[in-house]
Amino acid sequence: MRVLIAGGDGYLGWPTAMKLSNAGYEVVVVDNYLRRTLARNEDVEPIHDTPNLHDRINIWEELSQKKISLYIGDLQDWSFVASLFKETTPDVIIHYAEQPSAPYSMLNREAADLTIHNNLGVTANIIFATREFTPDAHIIKLGTMGEYGTPDIDIEEGWIDIKHKGREHKFLYPRQASSLYHTTKIMDTDLLWFYVRMWGLKVTDLMQGPVYGIFTDENQHDHRLLPFFSYDELFGTVLNRFVVQAVGGYPLTVYGKGGQTRGYLNIKDTLNCVTLSLENPPDKGELRIFNQFTETFSVNQLAEKVRDAGRELGIEVTVNNIENPRKELEEHYYNPVHTGLLDLGLKPHFLTTDVLAEMMEFVVKFKDNIQEHKIFRNTRWD
Amino acid sequence: MRVLIAGGDGYLGWPTAMKLSNAGYEVVVVDNYLRRTLARNEDVEPIHDTPNLHDRINIWEELSQKKISLYIGDLQDWSFVASLFKETTPDVIIHYAEQPSAPYSMLNREAADLTIHNNLGVTANIIFATREFTPDAHIIKLGTMGEYGTPDIDIEEGWIDIKHKGREHKFLYPRQASSLYHTTKIMDTDLLWFYVRMWGLKVTDLMQGPVYGIFTDENQHDHRLLPFFSYDELFGTVLNRFVVQAVGGYPLTVYGKGGQTRGYLNIKDTLNCVTLSLENPPDKGELRIFNQFTETFSVNQLAEKVRDAGRELGIEVTVNNIENPRKELEEHYYNPVHTGLLDLGLKPHFLTTDVLAEMMEFVVKFKDNIQEHKIFRNTRWD
Repeated sequence: MRVLIAGGDGYLGWPTAMKLSNAGYEVVVVDNYLRRTLARNEDVEPIHDTPNLHDRINIWEELSQKKISLYIGDLQDWSFVASLFKETTPDVIIHYAEQPSAPYSMLNREAADLTIHNNLGVTANIIFATREFTPDAHIIKLGTMGEYGTPDIDIEEGWIDIKHKGREHKFLYPRQASSLYHTTKIMDTDLLWFYVRMWGLKVTDLMQGPVYGIFTDENQHDHRLLPFFSYDELFGTVLNRFVVQAVGGYPLTVYGKGGQTRGYLNIKDTLNCVTLSLENPPDKGELRIFNQFTETFSVNQLAEKVRDAGRELGIEVTVNNIENPRKELEEHYYNPVHTGLLDLGLKPHFLTTDVLAEMMEFVVKFKDNIQEHKIFRNTRWD
Repeated sequence: MRVLIAGGDGYLGWPTAMKLSNAGYEVVVVDNYLRRTLARNEDVEPIHDTPNLHDRINIWEELSQKKISLYIGDLQDWSFVASLFKETTPDVIIHYAEQPSAPYSMLNREAADLTIHNNLGVTANIIFATREFTPDAHIIKLGTMGEYGTPDIDIEEGWIDIKHKGREHKFLYPRQASSLYHTTKIMDTDLLWFYVRMWGLKVTDLMQGPVYGIFTDENQHDHRLLPFFSYDELFGTVLNRFVVQAVGGYPLTVYGKGGQTRGYLNIKDTLNCVTLSLENPPDKGELRIFNQFTETFSVNQLAEKVRDAGRELGIEVTVNNIENPRKELEEHYYNPVHTGLLDLGLKPHFLTTDVLAEMMEFVVKFKDNIQEHKIFRNTRWD
């Protein structure tokens, strides 16, 4: 079975490529290095260097005796996408190929424009190419829990039955996000759901929470195979950022009251969720939606956990509640359902002190690379 | 008060420009003639020729002694949009500047791509320009009733209170459209609603049903001021198309069972709704939504009405139930609320036999221009 990983250079794309290659899938990776380009342009490179995809694929082949195919190109360009699909005829497309940062999308008009046109243009091209060249292929799309926002009722898994004036209808759960990036993911869902109904596409939408961690089964033996580890405000997710702040001796930057609650998961669970989705495809004409996270924490709880782990390693961790640059609720109801992937057999990796200590020990090795000015630059939502 | 009409060449844009000019507003019109270009490319020009905007503005000035300003350019181009807003600093922006055809959006990949990038790119640029140059301006956005689709519960006016597991939250009414064009309008709403919350924009979203008619108070005395009258499958809305089919002696093309029910309105009511919205602006940070139609009819009921009007004029009208090229429910529940504009004072023009007879008498004058091959070309949704 051939799997095309769109955005295969990314924090999740590359680990997914190795995982599926190891599991015996024929893996094709495509990327245009957008994430690297944006990080360099904005002066927020990851904490350690990462070989390019040609090099990583060679290293992986030496280690595993398994080949991964590579295409470098822009999935916004239809002629490139059409050749790619004609040549590789994937059975599964895993779509990570988006501008992935909420703060980047709020930086300025140019960044917003890039986020809108890149994310929707790539999603549209993947839809059109699937329809034209591989109509039975399964599209696995990375959505985000952020699409739902923080409504005052329970968040269901993608859909909701609305009873209204004595009648009833099943709708997509209404979405309202708190960044432009998350809003483009909602718009992706609009597009996919429309074409699922019109053309009978087969789509899984993984509504993922913030991911933390760096180690997977495939990258433990060679640090050159590690994914990006970003600790900056633009591309670093909150827990990875806190770990670097702790190791670097900087106070953890908690935005506002710190009551913002989200569903988190370990990078190993991301790979397992994607694999489970791939192994259990939906029917044609089905948009299947999973809420992909394993535990919910408030930002304050995360800070507390990092402080506890620091204590075990003899690192003193302080917290700085700064004025929130984002526009979001700092205290809110949050009760999202997440049973779909557990029902498929997911065995979660929880956020223990050991897991945090392992991350911190990793970061300690790169302590000299930490640049304070990268950590926080106050990209404001207003 | 200065009003910028984006898409001011269109079926509704030009009549709106004259209406507001007549009412004493300072009107600026912008267009790139996209609608004309697409119609010519696809061989589906309107039933009569329409002077370009320079000419129409001159004719209007001779007649009314009122000036309308004109900018020709592409609102997808930020440098053009930025100059336009800097030079004109509008108080109100009426946003009609979209690829407006559902069947065109389903024609092929290129048409789909154009619809996505044009419609979202223009909406995004209008949002960014408003924020940067005229943050207090009121954006009046033409949405469509088609965004809601045909759910099995009542359609509320933009918003719905969802009671779920003992809790309650007010959401945007969930939308699911039946064409890509309508889906881009949903995506427009996602974008506008996001930036209303983030930046306190002032937005009215008019969820409009299909419009019929051609005459307004401003264009009755000079046929050169009439808007496009399209009767083709791509740009002709159903009632205008039926009138031409009746006059031309062709059977009315009813798709499938003809039970598809929608909310319709006379072009005069569109202008009145837009004017009422403009005169009663929302607050900053408010997305106000009106369902803009005056009566609901099934396609069969419209055909029946055209047959009745034909009888009065001695025109024998036949109906042809053809296989539905679209993917839509042909029998469904439909009960949309539409009280907001009535509360503001809208006095509807209803679809009487007289109104239809007036449209038919107009079309009779151009009977020789009707080209049968333009009427139906079977653009299929699948």
